[in-house]
Amino acid sequence: MSTSRAEAFSDGVFAIAITLLVLSLKLSGNGSVKDQLLAAWPQYFAYVVSFLTIGIMWMNHHTILAHVQRVDRPLLVINLLLLMGVVVIPFPTILVAQHLTDTGGNANAAVVTYGLVMIAISLGFAGLWIYVATHAAALGAAVPPEALRQSIPGFTGGLLAYVVATLIGAFYWPVAAVIIFGLLAVYYLFEHLPSPADESPSQAAPGAWP
Amino acid sequence: MSTSRAEAFSDGVFAIAITLLVLSLKLSGNGSVKDQLLAAWPQYFAYVVSFLTIGIMWMNHHTILAHVQRVDRPLLVINLLLLMGVVVIPFPTILVAQHLTDTGGNANAAVVTYGLVMIAISLGFAGLWIYVATHAAALGAAVPPEALRQSIPGFTGGLLAYVVATLIGAFYWPVAAVIIFGLLAVYYLFEHLPSPADESPSQAAPGAWP
Amino acid sequence: MSTSRAEAFSDGVFAIAITLLVLSLKLSGNGSVKDQLLAAWPQYFAYVVSFLTIGIMWMNHHTILAHVQRVDRPLLVINLLLLMGVVVIPFPTILVAQHLTDTGGNANAAVVTYGLVMIAISLGFAGLWIYVATHAAALGAAVPPEALRQSIPGFTGGLLAYVVATLIGAFYWPVAAVIIFGLLAVYYLFEHLPSPADESPSQAAPGAWP
Amino acid sequence: MSTSRAEAFSDGVFAIAITLLVLSLKLSGNGSVKDQLLAAWPQYFAYVVSFLTIGIMWMNHHTILAHVQRVDRPLLVINLLLLMGVVVIPFPTILVAQHLTDTGGNANAAVVTYGLVMIAISLGFAGLWIYVATHAAALGAAVPPEALRQSIPGFTGGLLAYVVATLIGAFYWPVAAVIIFGLLAVYYLFEHLPSPADESPSQAAPGAWP
Repeated sequence: MSTSRAEAFSDGVFAIAITLLVLSLKLSGNGSVKDQLLAAWPQYFAYVVSFLTIGIMWMNHHTILAHVQRVDRPLLVINLLLLMGVVVIPFPTILVAQHLTDTGGNANAAVVTYGLVMIAISLGFAGLWIYVATHAAALGAAVPPEALRQSIPGFTGGLLAYVVATLIGAFYWPVAAVIIFGLLAVYYLFEHLPSPADESPSQAAPGAWP
Repeated sequence: MSTSRAEAFSDGVFAIAITLLVLSLKLSGNGSVKDQLLAAWPQYFAYVVSFLTIGIMWMNHHTILAHVQRVDRPLLVINLLLLMGVVVIPFPTILVAQHLTDTGGNANAAVVTYGLVMIAISLGFAGLWIYVATHAAALGAAVPPEALRQSIPGFTGGLLAYVVATLIGAFYWPVAAVIIFGLLAVYYLFEHLPSPADESPSQAAPGAWP
Repeated sequence: MSTSRAEAFSDGVFAIAITLLVLSLKLSGNGSVKDQLLAAWPQYFAYVVSFLTIGIMWMNHHTILAHVQRVDRPLLVINLLLLMGVVVIPFPTILVAQHLTDTGGNANAAVVTYGLVMIAISLGFAGLWIYVATHAAALGAAVPPEALRQSIPGFTGGLLAYVVATLIGAFYWPVAAVIIFGLLAVYYLFEHLPSPADESPSQAAPGAWP
Repeated sequence: MSTSRAEAFSDGVFAIAITLLVLSLKLSGNGSVKDQLLAAWPQYFAYVVSFLTIGIMWMNHHTILAHVQRVDRPLLVINLLLLMGVVVIPFPTILVAQHLTDTGGNANAAVVTYGLVMIAISLGFAGLWIYVATHAAALGAAVPPEALRQSIPGFTGGLLAYVVATLIGAFYWPVAAVIIFGLLAVYYLFEHLPSPADESPSQAAPGAWP
């Protein structure tokens, strides 16, 4: 199967998951509309963080698949497991949106759920990247080993940051954890995986990427 | 009509149906968030089983349509009936997610609904495959008769397993039935229909599949 | 703009609207799950009728756009108005699903709403078809005038049938009206607009349709 | 990355956001279905205005990206921020649909929320257009400076109109503000950005636009 097929399906899933985030915006129904709108700031906060996060994931997903020309069954299965995490994102987003200002451990539980989903997705991305790198020849692409080694710290770093933020949210300040989740998304907006263009500029010509 | 048009529409439907599964994740609102999250395990279970199932169906749908170069009106109608079953999946998924631990027959009714939808979709896939195989020449593809005969037991086996699991869910253990539904999805992750590539390797070259 | 762009967007809208029909399936919460499932037959009925209807509309939409090679601004606007009707379909579907067995005029009101949406969409399709036919040269396609004249009775007939069914639903039997809506969809599954292939077989070759 | 990739993802987001507008159509449950349908006119009003608005935005988004052959990281980030506004649209649409006839400032708060989202999106479009125009060479396209200068008043005018309508909605007549939002959409249906075809007709040939 060519990558374009798998990418089109993945794109659809990313696009729908990112659009369903709007479901996390819902007024409580108590008080005037203005008061409800002002009280709903955790909803806007959770929406923005999750939107940027899914957006970045979409970009990185393409960067990874841009290294290969075709996909095989194991890659499709890893991709499916990764998407299983991405599709879930609106659920912890709604949890955080509803409970970030709760007391009695509710905010912590919501943020930990969010963090665990992010950690699972990070592991999925790591699995996808490692599979692509270790099966580069069979997938019709040449990922130089040094590029792979260079990218591993980036993955480990991101995963570690999610773990730390989740622990902070679990035991200390849930709001701080969500801020870190947001900063991670902003960081990855500008810092990213090595793309095929970085290594072999000739492939960056228009049309080279299906 | 070329297959790419019908595939793009079908891909969209699969992608949206799989993403709407997140609607099956919804806390009850009773008790602390942590307690609600722990009590919601049937929701996670139903989500994972349905996600893997739709994911496999998407892959097999492509494998079937990869055998042909164009689609005709009857094929589009069969495909539409098949998608009518796929789109329904979030409904029994929510039923199972909400009622798997209920007593008094509710869990059984939920699981039987799930199983009936799966049986209907399996029949739809069988219809699609039989139509493709029996109209191979008109659809611009050569499916060797032996490949068709080899794949019939696989279809019958899958259908039979869904019937057995549905009966187990109806009269004995609903949870066991859902486990079987999940194992069927995992089984089909690795076992699958004969693809054009298996028969005629030259067609597996990048770009051969639209 | 080439038709492929407009078709891809329209395809997405059709695919999402058809998938959102699953939202019309929702148990009442009163009584056992089995009793609720049995009492929900109007939901299944409305779901099937609307699913087939949107499916046919998708096919006919392609048949119309297959006549042209590019789209202009007025065509995009007509298409947008048409899609505005298609996207609404889940709303009257839910109305019919919830109120088909109500008394006191509720079932009639639901069915009339459904019928009015169908009439509006039929008018949208008529507008799209007439625009394509009358601007064939500018849109890069040759629709013979006789093919246009032949197709006008089909459009008028379908529109008239929707008007009659809506009136029957308004004043007599709502269930009969929904049955007619369903029969119309089944009828159009097999009867359809003249396609470019019917007129100029050479264009039906694989790849001729973008 | 070629523009087709970013366009396909953006198309998906536009298509889903426009289709989720149907969620703003929901009867109150008080009184007969007929009475509820008649009382729900603000829902139809909000639906039509938002549908046309997203439709226009989709067309203009394509017109902008039609000027370039590839996208870079900053363009993707600006596009993501723009989509973050588009995806939100169903939220203020529901607010307006539910509260347009409320008193005590609720209608004003709903309309102001709607207007702020529109202003944010207008700024996003302005950012996208300015980036494309100022990085035309690097993005593989020649946007003549005079075309850019000509289009700036159009952008400023639209933004100003949204600000005025929002202020009218905030302090005077919420319904009038929504009417202006609708008229703006209708205006942009017919008035639009300079397209590549206007400047270089040879690029308008079928197939020139990916």
